[in-house]
This record gives sequence, structure tokens and C-alpha cells, in this order.
Amino acid sequence: METLKRIFRDHPAPASDAGDEAYELVRATAECAAACTACADACLAEAAVLQLRDCIRSCLDCADLCAVTGRLLARPGEQDADTLRAQLSACETACRACATLCAHHDGMAHCIACAEACRRCADACRGMREAIVS
Amino acid sequence: METLKRIFRDHPAPASDAGDEAYELVRATAECAAACTACADACLAEAAVLQLRDCIRSCLDCADLCAVTGRLLARPGEQDADTLRAQLSACETACRACATLCAHHDGMAHCIACAEACRRCADACRGMREAIVS
Amino acid sequence: METLKRIFRDHPAPASDAGDEAYELVRATAECAAACTACADACLAEAAVLQLRDCIRSCLDCADLCAVTGRLLARPGEQDADTLRAQLSACETACRACATLCAHHDGMAHCIACAEACRRCADACRGMREAIVS
Amino acid sequence: METLKRIFRDHPAPASDAGDEAYELVRATAECAAACTACADACLAEAAVLQLRDCIRSCLDCADLCAVTGRLLARPGEQDADTLRAQLSACETACRACATLCAHHDGMAHCIACAEACRRCADACRGMREAIVS
Repeated sequence: METLKRIFRDHPAPASDAGDEAYELVRATAECAAACTACADACLAEAAVLQLRDCIRSCLDCADLCAVTGRLLARPGEQDADTLRAQLSACETACRACATLCAHHDGMAHCIACAEACRRCADACRGMREAIVS
Repeated sequence: METLKRIFRDHPAPASDAGDEAYELVRATAECAAACTACADACLAEAAVLQLRDCIRSCLDCADLCAVTGRLLARPGEQDADTLRAQLSACETACRACATLCAHHDGMAHCIACAEACRRCADACRGMREAIVS
Repeated sequence: METLKRIFRDHPAPASDAGDEAYELVRATAECAAACTACADACLAEAAVLQLRDCIRSCLDCADLCAVTGRLLARPGEQDADTLRAQLSACETACRACATLCAHHDGMAHCIACAEACRRCADACRGMREAIVS
Repeated sequence: METLKRIFRDHPAPASDAGDEAYELVRATAECAAACTACADACLAEAAVLQLRDCIRSCLDCADLCAVTGRLLARPGEQDADTLRAQLSACETACRACATLCAHHDGMAHCIACAEACRRCADACRGMREAIVS
């Protein structure tokens, strides 16, 4: 996402917190959204789909929240700090829940990979949330 | 959204809170997402766009959060209560911020209409959040 | 979606085709997106989920395309006619495919309801596409 | 997006075209969606916003279509080929239109960067569309 980095750098009025941390969070949400979307699709194609239903549902929710959180962060201008903090909290919650469910299916490589993406995204959300000042 | 009501009624394993309140919230988020998207577009076309920049930004964020919150609610099966509560809180926060900004532009009918949709959606989010039990 | 209608009416520079037809299409896409999201969730909770996998996948795709098509239409200013036409064509294609799959499961009321929403949205997309002049 | 690559590799029933090309396209859409979202935000913050209105509108549409196209591709199971082809066509059309508008503002680095992301995504969409067999 090198073009995004260049756009962030060239933004005429970036928020104080629109730096490398925001850029890394956009990357983490994009990766997690794609991983959750693909993992839900893979779970749906498994013979054991009956046992994977809560994982599919959790992946769908997590993909949606990661995608929208990345969008907010990809707008580097002045933001409503309360909204951003609340959304980062919701995204972290969804990522942790999905990571826990996916980690239960440790016989499936796609669930393991998805759980890793979720944990990284959750950590990035928490870091960003704690960094928002006002 | 009569078809949605029928699908909710026919769901084989709905969550305890997937009733009329969830249905009304999906409607409120759909209306608010569309109103915010259209209001941002209208503000952008105004001669006074320079004074409407924070309103546009706020409408874009609010439209995104309403759309994703509606999606979570449109899945009436068992949900992660913590994720749902956090997302409802984020959506309410965005709606209240957007309603406040839009209400400042009381010379513009599209901002007034948008502020009304935001307030209704915020109230619906709070009602739903308080109704989630565990 | 009465607020959307008011915003459309108050838009300072609406496209020639941003009238009642666009408004009705935004409504149809919102209904179809919600119906497909809820139908996928209902199918996932059915005991016969193994037989419903293609329906779930189709509903997820259709929900995504309806949501994004509604967003384009909810921006009533001047649009890129080629983009709009192509997107309306993609949305119609997804809706027809999903309607066909859902209609196969005529023992399930949620699939029947979803198929109806898909057919209405497909027809609305085609009508709008044919109405775009340039 | 290394986790996505691992999930694609571990999918139990991937479509014939769900290989490296699909993976690269998910990456290209994610980059273009983020670039367009950030470029619209940067244009909105420019003093010359009045001259950038068509660019903002185009970036918003393009971001939406790239995001949804990436979602379809991130589901590597069997797809409806007609829907996928039509959506790739719509996404390519939006990307080319946005690249053209952004390239006009060659005094702004964010528009130049965004135009590059759009062109890469358009080319990736076309390549994928031509590769879909049935």
C-alpha cells in the first residue's frame, strides 16, 4: 500500500494521529477483512460445515467491522475522536472474538491463519485507540 | 422491508433479541446510511462547500457505520453480544456527531433531513443496546 | 426512506436521472441487501446447511453488490454514466443468479422471500439502466 | 496479505481461477480502495476544493466498487462467472474514470498517487476478467 503512504504524506490537513500508525492499521484491517472473508468461504466449503457455523458467522461480522474501520482510518483529516475510539473498540472486540473461535479449529490451516490476522488487527486497534489524545 | 420481516420470522434459530426491535433498527440504519450518503453529495455540490467540509466528512463516516451496523443486525442468529453492543455504541456516537453538525446548517433542507435521520438512528441504536441482555 | 426523498428534492445539482426512479432503486437495493444478508444467516442455521451452501455464497455476493449499487444511486449529483450502467448490470446479474438459487428451496419461506426481493431489485436495476441516457 | 495467500492455498474447494491472480487482484483492490478514500479526503481539505468536486465524487464511487470487487474475489470457492465478470467490468470502468480525473490534477501528489493505484487496479480487473473461462 505504498500509494496510500504517499497520499497520507501529501494530505493538506492531516489529523495529529494520521501517521505511520494509522497507515499500519489500514493495512492490518485490510488483511484481516480479506482473511475473514476467505476463511468464512473456506469453512463453508468444508465437509464439517455444521461444526463451523459459529466461525463463519464470526468471520462475516469481523470482516465487515474491519473493512469499515479501515475506511475511517483511511480518511486522514480531522476526525471525531469519540467516534473513532468507539469504532476501534468495536473492531477490537470483533477481532478478539473471531480469533478465539478460529483458534479452536486448529486442524484447519485457514482458521489458524485467520486467527493470526485477527490478533494482529485487534492489537493494532488497541494501540491506535490508546494513541488518540483528545 | 417486508421481505426482511418475513425472513426474520422464518429464521430457524433467531437470537432472543432478533425481533421487531432489530427489524426497526435495520430500517433506521438503512435510512440513515442513504440520507448521509445523499447529504454528503448535496453538500459537495453546494456553492458554500468550503463551509460544509466537516459536514461532508461526518456524513461519510456516519453512512459507513450505519451500513455496517445494519448488516450485523440483519443476521438474526446468535451474535457476540459484546461486539454488537460495542458496534451499536460506535454507530450511536457517529450519528449524534453527524446530527449536531448537520443541524448547524439549518438553511439547507438536506442537512435538516439528514439530522433527523441521524437522531432517529442514534435513538434506535441506544434502545437496542440497552435491550441486549447478556 | 422519506428523508432520502427530501434530500433528493433539495439537491443543488442533481443528475437528470436522479428522480423517483433512483429513489425507488435505492429502496430496492436496501431491501435486497438486507434480505440476502438475513437469508444467508438463516440458511447457515438450517439443519440442511450442506445443501444450502451455494445459496449462502450467492446471497453474500448479492448483498454486497446491492449495498454498493444503492450507494452509487444515493449520490444524486452528476455521475459517470458508464460506471453506473456497468454497476447496474453487475447488480442485476447477481440478483437474477441469487433469485434462481433461492427459488429452488421452495420449502423454506426465507428463501422464497429472498428470491422475491432479488427479482424486484433486478427489475429495478434493469429499468434504471435503460433510463440512463448518455 | 500473507495470511490471505495461506487461506487461498488451504481452501477445500477453490474455483479454478482462485490462484495467484485472484490474490494479486484482492491486493490491488484493497490498495485502490484505500487510495481513493484517502484522496477524496485530501481533496476535500484542499483550498481548491471547488475545482476538485468531480474528483471527490469519482474517488468515492471508485473506492466503493474496489472494496466490493475485492470481497467477491476474496471468496475463492465456486462463483457465478457472469456476476464476477460483470463486476470486474464495472470496477475497471470506475477505476479508468477515476484515473483520468485524478491525472488532471497533476499539481497534487495525492491525485497522482491515486491515479496510479486506479490504473493498476483497472489492469488487474481486466486481466482477471479475461482469465475467467466459462
